Amino acid sequence: MIKIVLVRHGQSEWNLENRFTGWTDVDLSDQGLHEARQAGAILKKNGYIFDEAYTSYLKRAIRTLWIMLHELDMMWIPVYKTWKLNERHYGALQGLNKAETAEKYGEDKVQAWRRSVDVRPPALNEDDPRYEGGHPAYRHLNEGQVPKTENLLDTEARVLDYWNERIVPDLKVGRHILIAVHGNTIRALVKHLDQLEGDGIVSLNIPTGVPLVYELDEELKPIRHYYLGENGPLPEHAIEKHI
Amino acid sequence: MIKIVLVRHGQSEWNLENRFTGWTDVDLSDQGLHEARQAGAILKKNGYIFDEAYTSYLKRAIRTLWIMLHELDMMWIPVYKTWKLNERHYGALQGLNKAETAEKYGEDKVQAWRRSVDVRPPALNEDDPRYEGGHPAYRHLNEGQVPKTENLLDTEARVLDYWNERIVPDLKVGRHILIAVHGNTIRALVKHLDQLEGDGIVSLNIPTGVPLVYELDEELKPIRHYYLGENGPLPEHAIEKHI
Repeated sequence: MIKIVLVRHGQSEWNLENRFTGWTDVDLSDQGLHEARQAGAILKKNGYIFDEAYTSYLKRAIRTLWIMLHELDMMWIPVYKTWKLNERHYGALQGLNKAETAEKYGEDKVQAWRRSVDVRPPALNEDDPRYEGGHPAYRHLNEGQVPKTENLLDTEARVLDYWNERIVPDLKVGRHILIAVHGNTIRALVKHLDQLEGDGIVSLNIPTGVPLVYELDEELKPIRHYYLGENGPLPEHAIEKHI
Repeated sequence: MIKIVLVRHGQSEWNLENRFTGWTDVDLSDQGLHEARQAGAILKKNGYIFDEAYTSYLKRAIRTLWIMLHELDMMWIPVYKTWKLNERHYGALQGLNKAETAEKYGEDKVQAWRRSVDVRPPALNEDDPRYEGGHPAYRHLNEGQVPKTENLLDTEARVLDYWNERIVPDLKVGRHILIAVHGNTIRALVKHLDQLEGDGIVSLNIPTGVPLVYELDEELKPIRHYYLGENGPLPEHAIEKHI
């Protein structure tokens, strides 16, 4: 049986302030650091071992992974970082808090941007300081590949690209894989693994810092999945309090 | 001009206790954490940017690198870890302090093990708990590849293997490289770069947590090298106090 563990990064400074974050590279809050340590400790207590790990280019995910690898005493495993596992790009909403956004654009639009898979928020202009076109991390991307805004389907496309190209082959040869990423990256993976259709995925809330384990058959079809607590799989209602 | 930056990890818990460490996976001391932060801050203040970084499988080096990448705000760059950049393996001396070793084996032998390039300390037995043959980090090595003891030439051979195979090609295409490793790993690289002969290299002390910059021509011959302080290259005498 194949197992893969997905962890959403701990609370970030902007989760705390309720701002649209997207590709903005904010760090973990103190609470987020604590959540990351706890996620690592849970994995260790349940005897998980990993051969390799994946994360995004964003420090809130990288730091969550580093802290977990420290707790697991597995700092030496290979870590692969990719922009394709970055959070959904939120365009011109990045940096605004939810109240400011509703005031500026109206609550209906905010709901459409957050709760549909195919509507994009207003795009960043190339001269906007928030646009990452000139950032060294994204220098190797082709022109036009650095997003200015994304809907969830855009995010999903790049996440699945990377999943199929880099992660699937390693899962198939039996590697034990840990992925530390973002809410919408995990949504995209869950939608793919569970073959969900329509807009349902957008109402799936992924708790921060709680390991989500997928057990897969050799065709990578899910057998079952669960969130992991100190003493093994958590019942559904135990997760609600984390969300 | 090609530049490469070598950093010896900050003080470890066993440096502090004056024990032979080798492949024992001890962490940084508080002083070591401080040194790593300082090394990162010095690189940042001098405007260094990096495309990729290399380190060993040992957490004192990995943690030094992670802290520097945090200080540099470059957590996203690729990090390559390899056992070939591990510290020299000190065989049965690992864990003993310098006084215990002198008492057990005599001061002359200790000097020979530390101050020659071709004398190996007593080897570990395969059933010694200190032998890493069964450790998951070294599982992918061929039988006989996990050392039981090393002299400096043994260490040098694997370091140069990796240097030539993995680092040289990236230097030649202009990548900016940061290497966070160990005293004897850096000695091996310095000996190779400066084409030193004989035993002279063993008396070269590398300070912990001070960036050592090599400027190289396109054939990778050194033009000059220096330790870096907050305000640029340090004069020789400024280094002595670090050793």
